[in-house]
Amino acid sequence: MPERFAYLGPQGTFTEAAMRAFPGSAQAEHLPYATVPAALDALRRGDVDLAVVALENSVEGSVPTTLDELATGEPVQIVGEVHLPVSFALLVRPGMSLADVKTVASHPHAQPQCRRWLAEHVPDAEWRAATSNAEAAQHVADGLYDAALAGSFAAARYGLEVLAEDIHDVADAVTRFIALRRPCEPPAPTGTDRTTVVAFIGEDHPGALLEILTEFSMRGINLTLIQSRPTGAGLGSYLFWMDFEGHVADARVGEALMGLRRVCADVRFVGSYARADRVRPDIRRGTHDADFTEAAAWLESVRTGCS
Amino acid sequence: MPERFAYLGPQGTFTEAAMRAFPGSAQAEHLPYATVPAALDALRRGDVDLAVVALENSVEGSVPTTLDELATGEPVQIVGEVHLPVSFALLVRPGMSLADVKTVASHPHAQPQCRRWLAEHVPDAEWRAATSNAEAAQHVADGLYDAALAGSFAAARYGLEVLAEDIHDVADAVTRFIALRRPCEPPAPTGTDRTTVVAFIGEDHPGALLEILTEFSMRGINLTLIQSRPTGAGLGSYLFWMDFEGHVADARVGEALMGLRRVCADVRFVGSYARADRVRPDIRRGTHDADFTEAAAWLESVRTGCS
Repeated sequence: MPERFAYLGPQGTFTEAAMRAFPGSAQAEHLPYATVPAALDALRRGDVDLAVVALENSVEGSVPTTLDELATGEPVQIVGEVHLPVSFALLVRPGMSLADVKTVASHPHAQPQCRRWLAEHVPDAEWRAATSNAEAAQHVADGLYDAALAGSFAAARYGLEVLAEDIHDVADAVTRFIALRRPCEPPAPTGTDRTTVVAFIGEDHPGALLEILTEFSMRGINLTLIQSRPTGAGLGSYLFWMDFEGHVADARVGEALMGLRRVCADVRFVGSYARADRVRPDIRRGTHDADFTEAAAWLESVRTGCS
Repeated sequence: MPERFAYLGPQGTFTEAAMRAFPGSAQAEHLPYATVPAALDALRRGDVDLAVVALENSVEGSVPTTLDELATGEPVQIVGEVHLPVSFALLVRPGMSLADVKTVASHPHAQPQCRRWLAEHVPDAEWRAATSNAEAAQHVADGLYDAALAGSFAAARYGLEVLAEDIHDVADAVTRFIALRRPCEPPAPTGTDRTTVVAFIGEDHPGALLEILTEFSMRGINLTLIQSRPTGAGLGSYLFWMDFEGHVADARVGEALMGLRRVCADVRFVGSYARADRVRPDIRRGTHDADFTEAAAWLESVRTGCS
C-alpha cells in the first residue's frame, strides 16, 4: 500500500511543490488539507503517514500556527526539510493583459512580498484575500477576480496563463518547509543535520535564557533559529523554539539536551533531520564525539582508581 | 603490620598535630621527614602509606611547594584534610621570663603571624629563622636562642615552658593540611566533600579561564580555591589548581570534569575527600544526581524513538 502524504492545499500551492521534493513522494498518495492543523490532525489520527507544512519564510518570518502546533499540540516529529525559493507569478485567464487587471487575489503572506512590483505595474488594482494562493488562482479561473499571485506551476492546474514571472520584491527569498511523521526514531545522521527542540520556562527567573544559551554555546553548537512564544498557561510561562546545528545522536548535542532537560520546566524534542542547505557544522575543539568518549573513559578511571 | 604515616617534621610541628587528627593515626607508625618533597617521595616509593603536608594557610596563603609537587610531580592523591587553628605560643626554658627574651626563633611563616604581639611584648628581641617551629624549640632547649614561636603542644616534647599563649595577631587563622596516598579509588562520598583537580592550559587562548569556570558554574559547582601557576614548560603554558564543592562520584562533578578534560590540554585528578569544615553544598535546581539520571533516560528515549 502506498504511503499517504498530507499537505496544505489546495493543489497548486508552494507546499504541494515542497512535498513533491521529499523522498518517497513520487510513490505516495497526495492529500490536500485546508489548514495546517487539519493536516497535522490527519497525521496524528493515522489518516496519513507524513505531512508537509511551511515553518518559516525568509521575508515573512516563522509561521505561528506551525510553531504553536508543534510546540504544544499532540507531538509530531520533523523528519526532513525543503527550502523552496519564493518565486511569484501573476496568473490570469488566457488572453488577458495587464491593462485588464483590476483585482489581484492571494494569500495574505504573498501580497507584501510583491508590493513593489504591483505598485509599479498595476498601481490601480485592488487586492483581495484568499486562504491560499492556489485558491486565489481558482477564483481567477472562476472569473471572480482578474489575477492571482501564485507559483507559476499553478497556472496549468487552473487553466491560467503566466502574465509575469519573478515578481517578488526580495531576491533570494526562501520558504522552509518541514516534513512530519508521528514520533519515531530520528533519521540517521548525515553530517549536515539540524535539530529542533522546544524548551519550556515554567516560571520566569533571571538568566533563564542565558542559562539555556550557555548549554549550547559551551559545547560549540550554533543556533540557526530561536523564537520565544507565550505558552498560553499564564504570565511568565513561555517557551523557546530552537533550531540548531547537529543531530541528537551527536555527543555534544546529547549533552546539551540533557542540560536543557535538567534546567527547564520541560523540553520537547521536535526532530533531528538532514539540512536542506547541507551546511556542515564547524565542530569546535573538544566537542567531537571522540572527545566525549575519551573524557568518559578518563572519568571512569578516576572514579574507580584504575588510572 | 601497622600503616606508616609520614609528616613534615621534626616532632612537635603543626603538621604532626594535624597527622594525629587523621583516622588510623593512633595505630600507625609516625615518620618525620625534613621537607615536603622528601615526605612525598617516601610515599611514592612505598616507604610510607600516607603523608600529611600543609596545603594552605588562611594568613599566608597556599604553600607553593605542595601545590607544585601535587600538580606536576609523580601523582599522589588527596584522601582527606584537617583544618588546624593556628595558635602560637612563646616557648622558653623553665624559669625564664619575658625580660630574659633577647632572641625569638621560628619558621619564617610564623614570625609575620605574631608580629604585633612581639612588637608589643618583646620589642627589643631579635628574630632568628629555623626550618620549622619544632626545630626552633629544639634550639631553645639547647640554649642557642631564648624563645621559640610554636604550638603549645611542642613545649612538653622539648622540655620547655609556655610563657604566653594565643599570641598570633589574626584570630581564627587556620591551616589546611591534606593527607595523601598513592593513586587509588577515592574515599566514598559523605555529602560534604571537596574535590581537587589541576587543569593544564597547553597553549593560552582568549577565554581559556572563562571556559573552565563555565564548566563549573553552569552545573552549580562552587570553587573554594583557585590558583594559577606556571608549569615551567614555557611562556603561555600554565595550570590552574582548583578545589571545589562535591565528589567525583556526583553526576554534576563528573560532567564538569569531562568538560574540563575535553577543553584543556590535560587534567589531573588530585582527589575527592571529606571536607574538614563539613560545609554542605547548596545543590542548584537541575543538578542533583536524580536530574542527570532522568535527563539521560529522556535522551535515550528520544534517540531510540521510544518516548
